[in-house]
Amino acid sequence: MTARVTVAVDANGADRGPAEVARAAAAAAGDGVEVIVFGPAGELGLPADGVEVVDAPVSIAKAPDPARAVRTQPEASIVQAVQAVAAGRAQALVSGGSTGATLAAGLFHLKRARGVHRPALAVLVPAPRAPFLLLDAGANVEVRPEHLVQFAHMGAAFMEAVAGVARPRVALLSNGAEPAKGTEEVVAAHALLAAQPGGLNFVGNVEGFAIGTGVADVLVADGFTGNVALKVMEGASAALLAAVRAAATSSHRAKAGGLLLRPALRGLRDDLDPEAQGGAFLLGLRGLVVVPHGSFGADGIARAIALAARGAREDVVGRTHERLASAGALRQALPEPSAAGASVQGPT
Amino acid sequence: MTARVTVAVDANGADRGPAEVARAAAAAAGDGVEVIVFGPAGELGLPADGVEVVDAPVSIAKAPDPARAVRTQPEASIVQAVQAVAAGRAQALVSGGSTGATLAAGLFHLKRARGVHRPALAVLVPAPRAPFLLLDAGANVEVRPEHLVQFAHMGAAFMEAVAGVARPRVALLSNGAEPAKGTEEVVAAHALLAAQPGGLNFVGNVEGFAIGTGVADVLVADGFTGNVALKVMEGASAALLAAVRAAATSSHRAKAGGLLLRPALRGLRDDLDPEAQGGAFLLGLRGLVVVPHGSFGADGIARAIALAARGAREDVVGRTHERLASAGALRQALPEPSAAGASVQGPT
Repeated sequence: MTARVTVAVDANGADRGPAEVARAAAAAAGDGVEVIVFGPAGELGLPADGVEVVDAPVSIAKAPDPARAVRTQPEASIVQAVQAVAAGRAQALVSGGSTGATLAAGLFHLKRARGVHRPALAVLVPAPRAPFLLLDAGANVEVRPEHLVQFAHMGAAFMEAVAGVARPRVALLSNGAEPAKGTEEVVAAHALLAAQPGGLNFVGNVEGFAIGTGVADVLVADGFTGNVALKVMEGASAALLAAVRAAATSSHRAKAGGLLLRPALRGLRDDLDPEAQGGAFLLGLRGLVVVPHGSFGADGIARAIALAARGAREDVVGRTHERLASAGALRQALPEPSAAGASVQGPT
Repeated sequence: MTARVTVAVDANGADRGPAEVARAAAAAAGDGVEVIVFGPAGELGLPADGVEVVDAPVSIAKAPDPARAVRTQPEASIVQAVQAVAAGRAQALVSGGSTGATLAAGLFHLKRARGVHRPALAVLVPAPRAPFLLLDAGANVEVRPEHLVQFAHMGAAFMEAVAGVARPRVALLSNGAEPAKGTEEVVAAHALLAAQPGGLNFVGNVEGFAIGTGVADVLVADGFTGNVALKVMEGASAALLAAVRAAATSSHRAKAGGLLLRPALRGLRDDLDPEAQGGAFLLGLRGLVVVPHGSFGADGIARAIALAARGAREDVVGRTHERLASAGALRQALPEPSAAGASVQGPT
């Protein structure tokens, strides 16, 4: 027996259009999951069991200034969908794929969780045999060191509360393992993380090589570097799988081998498929938000809806926040070394 | 008939020790290539044909402040090796693997090429069927927009002059394709690059997915992002190849397939092996410098020496600089849009 959950879905912003999102909603509804789709009703096709449609044709998914668009266009589909969550009509939000508009609407109508500096996009990366959580994967292009520190705590809290990892190992993505390697922000964050009280299992800087080696459960980066790293990983994996396919047709002998190997490789390809994960959690808001890739088809978006429903049932938001609080990682509670504290205070 | 070339090699700094570098020197010497190895003579083993040893046991490869170490320790192996190039005793330098010390010694004793803001590490990335030049791969952790612009020109000049690519397509690595996506520096660099005169074939921002898709011949990034991206690429490729190997032993059927496929996959693995490339060119100095990974074994370092010798014969430094000059990309010649110009000029 599972609790009934309603997921609000914004159908605008997905690369393949609102109808693809509507198909995903129809596929995801059922088993105690209801879906409310906000989008252009005329394009959303037939009604389906467990799917309610709210006509909201206005899209701000491509707005150059999402924060302004959210404030000035309350009729936009993403704003209506977020408000459904804020009002308790739905327990989670899935956006059509625009991170900027989703983040802006989430900040404005759901609000940041108490004591959280900045929400971060957290992606569970399906590295073969060594999955890990990468955050921030794109919500904050520029960050301060204390933001990185809180991302570390948020990621650890998520992995502990939701993925059941005991004492998750947290690493900082940098261009070298030494504490002095990295941008100014990364070097400062390293120093702060090394000085955190025992609650955080900080294992230091890791380089990009660490991907897939299982040295960390949580990989922390600013949203620019994290986004580039995630997409490079996906691009490199896709290019390599294509090269393996090409190698498997390069001779009669290789073709025979490729046919025999195909079932085993299909499993690997499915494991690596970004659509299989359903997208990223936007952690640090007062409501549950899942952002799929804009490029996802109906299958991927349906998985995002399922992920959001499961996250709501498992109380990802509440449990992550409790864990943050008990680790002393909320804004007012974060210890600041005296030097860092001094640098933001002028002479009185 | 090829010209005789002498390559100066610093044996300190490589992860596997000076003896491994000496083995590489012995393997690379011959065919008109002579090698001078600077390192602890007692650890370098037997003399070899075409290899001269200069006893230089002092290493500054791990110095926390490389620039200071270069100035205060003229007896250090990297300093002596760079001076051999500066004095014309050798035509190229290969370092043992410490980018920081090599860069510092190069800046101090070889000097920046006229009109170059900052040298950059340029790596020819062996993406299957879509190789490209990535720069900066780690020389400059923090950059200004005009540095990124010059990296674009240096990369294009290198690909045109050395790799023979006509009108190389140059892209900026970012977290989105839109011109407004990225850090402040990336957004400003995009605007400057879009305003460059016709000499540069700027194709805009690309995301990490672009790796291996062949959309660009030159990928420009700051040294932090470029370093992370390069290592993520290598890490993801290695993890995936390991997973393919694991899949190929997951059942009797898969094992048989794996055996048949092995020769074709071995070629792919060799193509992707970072040691096969020999390392990165440090572009923008008045002499030729090649930096292998610190992790390379004798094979990889030998390839770095061969790469340096070929680079000296092909006059990579001179031809890249000529191309930079003719593209109007040298410091004093770079056009600056009035807004950017105004921001650095105070009222008179």
